[in-house]
Amino acid sequence: MTDAAPRRRGRPSRTEAEQGPAARDRILAAARAEFSERGYDKTSVRGIAKAAGVDPALVHHYFGSKDEVFAAAIEISFEPALIVPAVVGEGPEGVGERLARFFFGIWENPATRAPMLAVIRSAVTHEAAAKVLRTFVLRRLLERVAVDLDVPEPKFRAELAASHMIGIAFVRYVVKVEPLASVDKEEIIAMVAPTLQRYLTEA
Amino acid sequence: MTDAAPRRRGRPSRTEAEQGPAARDRILAAARAEFSERGYDKTSVRGIAKAAGVDPALVHHYFGSKDEVFAAAIEISFEPALIVPAVVGEGPEGVGERLARFFFGIWENPATRAPMLAVIRSAVTHEAAAKVLRTFVLRRLLERVAVDLDVPEPKFRAELAASHMIGIAFVRYVVKVEPLASVDKEEIIAMVAPTLQRYLTEA
Repeated sequence: MTDAAPRRRGRPSRTEAEQGPAARDRILAAARAEFSERGYDKTSVRGIAKAAGVDPALVHHYFGSKDEVFAAAIEISFEPALIVPAVVGEGPEGVGERLARFFFGIWENPATRAPMLAVIRSAVTHEAAAKVLRTFVLRRLLERVAVDLDVPEPKFRAELAASHMIGIAFVRYVVKVEPLASVDKEEIIAMVAPTLQRYLTEA
Repeated sequence: MTDAAPRRRGRPSRTEAEQGPAARDRILAAARAEFSERGYDKTSVRGIAKAAGVDPALVHHYFGSKDEVFAAAIEISFEPALIVPAVVGEGPEGVGERLARFFFGIWENPATRAPMLAVIRSAVTHEAAAKVLRTFVLRRLLERVAVDLDVPEPKFRAELAASHMIGIAFVRYVVKVEPLASVDKEEIIAMVAPTLQRYLTEA
């Protein structure tokens, strides 16, 4: 066992285990890449550890099970989405358009689109992944959005808005049905913003 | 080779090959069940043939490749959806609510929900399935809906409406986020119908 070749090695060196935050970040980055590329099913703790250049035991040490690594990895993907409350918090005027623009900002950027697609793919095919999405991410996110809404049943309203955005993502980026797949995002925003505005602000 | 045991046999009898429409229907029913239960990836022509009690060659004879069996199987699933043009064709007044009710009629019925979920699952995880959905089903369906709409860019409008319905299905039936997963469908229809009405009728 030497200190060289910190990546793609079977066992961690003491040095790696000691550099906690760096190793943890490396594991998360590897997990995000593995889940994006391979999907939930084909990703393993062992594969994540290998890609991160650490021992699988270190992955378990930091995160526990595969589900928990998945939760942590997709929380990173959703971090931009956690800014949504700020979008909503600016006040009711124009919130529909701000939310639509925010959404397309994430989806039109390939770097953030890939992990979002991975999350949708995993959630659709694996109940474990769907549960993680439901429990850790959507609930927290939508609860934070709902807090700022002055409408009856704010969580229901926030979910209706989110469901429209998710459906557009499905048709535009996953199934790629024309013309929705190619139309300029401004055209979509012009149509969708009033819908979100109504859901989020009108009693 | 005997005439007994028409199901779960490796090779087809002459009788089976001759009873064309019955065998074809049985293959389609088997394909629909296999794709629903196993997903696109794990379903094989061989498995479909076995479930239908025919020789795989007969599946190829009637449908060609696995993709083509998939297309035929999901076209059956979408048959109710092909009534949508009638929903739209009744005229602009109340079309948003009629479309929302039609959609929930499909999704709230477990018999029609299962194949729809299978289609979404397959399309999300396999480009081949997404292409089939895009090419054979959504394009034909949405083109037929669009024909009856008196708005600018009718196909774009039909897709926006469809995307909202698909997104609600994703959040309510796939990820099952509360409260949207449990709320009475009438509450959703009351909120969504005006959105669909606007997309499908307002210039």
